[in-house]
Amino acid sequence: MQIMQAAIDVAEKNGTPFGAALAMGDEVFVTAANQTKKLHDATAHAEVHAIRKLSKMLRKSNLSGFTLYTTCEPCPMCMSAAIWSEIETVVFGCSIPDISKTMPQIQIRCHEVAKESFRKIDVHPAFMEKECLELLNRYS
Amino acid sequence: MQIMQAAIDVAEKNGTPFGAALAMGDEVFVTAANQTKKLHDATAHAEVHAIRKLSKMLRKSNLSGFTLYTTCEPCPMCMSAAIWSEIETVVFGCSIPDISKTMPQIQIRCHEVAKESFRKIDVHPAFMEKECLELLNRYS
Repeated sequence: MQIMQAAIDVAEKNGTPFGAALAMGDEVFVTAANQTKKLHDATAHAEVHAIRKLSKMLRKSNLSGFTLYTTCEPCPMCMSAAIWSEIETVVFGCSIPDISKTMPQIQIRCHEVAKESFRKIDVHPAFMEKECLELLNRYS
Repeated sequence: MQIMQAAIDVAEKNGTPFGAALAMGDEVFVTAANQTKKLHDATAHAEVHAIRKLSKMLRKSNLSGFTLYTTCEPCPMCMSAAIWSEIETVVFGCSIPDISKTMPQIQIRCHEVAKESFRKIDVHPAFMEKECLELLNRYS
């Protein structure tokens, strides 16, 4: 609960529905919000931004053992980034269909990307869904 | 031909099969090779790296009007990054099945990602395929 709350908090702080946290066990290592507008970088989704921050911090691209918490279901860019980074578990709040009600989305669900991966990655949907939906509705 | 050659050249220079170039018409704006190992960043595929370089250079995330040339078919991370960046056309050399012979890949083809996009993006496969396959075989 506390880890997803950290993802929600960083999103709130940045005025966006998109927040992410990378944790090992109960320990949060990094949080990140969507920074696409601020950084003029369409790839700076919260999840990719969190992955880059942690890789830079640890000076390694292999993030095995980490769990990615994200307020909104990862798009195929972010889900693939998680796979390439060897992240083992993804936990998300609201879904691509939820986001699609107000924002354009690539219509590939993250479990579909996981299914085509060369590496096992577990997906846990609808975690703290109510809180993440409230966040989504507030900022979209 | 010259634009894909620029992508091949930057890949060669970096000892990787993965090179990309972003061009408008005949003019190459940036080239980039895969930098995942050098930067300790699993998201630094050639295509994402090129997109980030150009966005930084132009100080905007909207790259509409640009064509992405890449020696190897974009993975779902890179193809989604192209969509989010509003790139209109993707031209690639060898395919995900080609790459999969020697390296693990996420088994979602880039035209499948394009099909699920909220924005039209054209895909031109097998461009300078022979040269790109030679490059792939040399460095994989």
